[in-house]
Amino acid sequence: MADPRYVSPSTGRPVRAVLFDTFGTVVDWRTGVASAAREFVSRHDLSLDAESFADEWRAQYQPAMEQVRTRGRDFILLDVLHRENLDEVLRAHELDPAGFDEAELAELARCWRYLPPWPDSVTGIAALRRHYIVGPLSNGHTALLLDMAKAYDLPWDLVLGSDIGRAYKPDPVAYRTPAQILGIDPGEVMLVAAHNGDLQGARDAGLATAFVARPTEHGPGQTRDLTATSDWDAVADSITSLAVQLHS
Amino acid sequence: MADPRYVSPSTGRPVRAVLFDTFGTVVDWRTGVASAAREFVSRHDLSLDAESFADEWRAQYQPAMEQVRTRGRDFILLDVLHRENLDEVLRAHELDPAGFDEAELAELARCWRYLPPWPDSVTGIAALRRHYIVGPLSNGHTALLLDMAKAYDLPWDLVLGSDIGRAYKPDPVAYRTPAQILGIDPGEVMLVAAHNGDLQGARDAGLATAFVARPTEHGPGQTRDLTATSDWDAVADSITSLAVQLHS
Repeated sequence: MADPRYVSPSTGRPVRAVLFDTFGTVVDWRTGVASAAREFVSRHDLSLDAESFADEWRAQYQPAMEQVRTRGRDFILLDVLHRENLDEVLRAHELDPAGFDEAELAELARCWRYLPPWPDSVTGIAALRRHYIVGPLSNGHTALLLDMAKAYDLPWDLVLGSDIGRAYKPDPVAYRTPAQILGIDPGEVMLVAAHNGDLQGARDAGLATAFVARPTEHGPGQTRDLTATSDWDAVADSITSLAVQLHS
Repeated sequence: MADPRYVSPSTGRPVRAVLFDTFGTVVDWRTGVASAAREFVSRHDLSLDAESFADEWRAQYQPAMEQVRTRGRDFILLDVLHRENLDEVLRAHELDPAGFDEAELAELARCWRYLPPWPDSVTGIAALRRHYIVGPLSNGHTALLLDMAKAYDLPWDLVLGSDIGRAYKPDPVAYRTPAQILGIDPGEVMLVAAHNGDLQGARDAGLATAFVARPTEHGPGQTRDLTATSDWDAVADSITSLAVQLHS
């Protein structure tokens, strides 16, 4: 077990694992998805703005997971949800998904597996890794998170996707599954996220919490999650700065 | 997904993940356990040979797992089996486990989490990692394998222990769980092992196979698993040599 270096004021426990929300916190999904969308739009000579396309695709994310969380839909992999949501976005622009090659749409949907990290992510995670177990705590599934890690050398110790606990955040099961597998108390796990709502879910499930601001996650006009809205254990403007706060 | 570089002659599939039996294949359990046993024996002034103690402890391993595999015992973590087996070894030497501090015995049993790698393991795994997904495929559970990885910088991409599929090798479920989680065919997974029996189980479950000889795993008088006893896809005398064979 990693040498505990930081005691969470809220859980009263030494933090042993520092786990990260991924989309938005570790990787810049908007830039990555817009880049893939731009190629697609250009190839088919469509009059669509790539960044708006990314925003609209992302906007389908929570409602799609909500079907799993509360409306009795069986747990399914994020790849499948992304592919289904792509159809919704195309239809909203009066484009018929059946008018495109299915393999091409499936490939486009897999762009969510290869999103670029923010500039401080790899360095910050590597610093934290010296004293803590590090890994994602994401709604992405293991295969997706692993492809992302290998594409960009994210130095995770452990990659346990949402398919391991078969639950999506903010279901408490999703937050508690890593601690259960590691054989540690949920209060010894810290969630790092750029989203106050995610951190509230983690706190409700008994985890330690750290907010890292990503003020351009949603583009230059972002209005939400610009600052911490609660007394999270740590608040930082980068993962490297968080590592310093946690004595790494 | 890692760029496939090697096609398995037996499965006809490109290998995407190279997964390793751990105890004996990646780490030298006998040296590690004997070292912990030596401290224990010395502390209590017992007349026990540390290497024999390690051998006797390891000999309890398969019978203990067999209770889970075929005799209806619920899946339990290897830490618990190791702790129970320690009592057996002590009793065989007419030592009463109740005569020792329980915390000390529990700590001794956790020596199986911190076993030293063979000299070629870290280098060989790092080489394979450039082109393949690498990870353990062990009867150890995730928390144990993660502690071992962090103690010795084993550069795994993915650590999925036996607790994820809740099955011990040679149950086919144990061999197939990683492929299922990765969303790939079992024939795209190669098991690397120093044990012909383990490789036979992997082949029966549809995996590609590689034998790496560890002729001193059981000490200088080792008689079994000195050579490959079947036409495994690859046969090597080290993991670094295997990496060359797989074009890494």
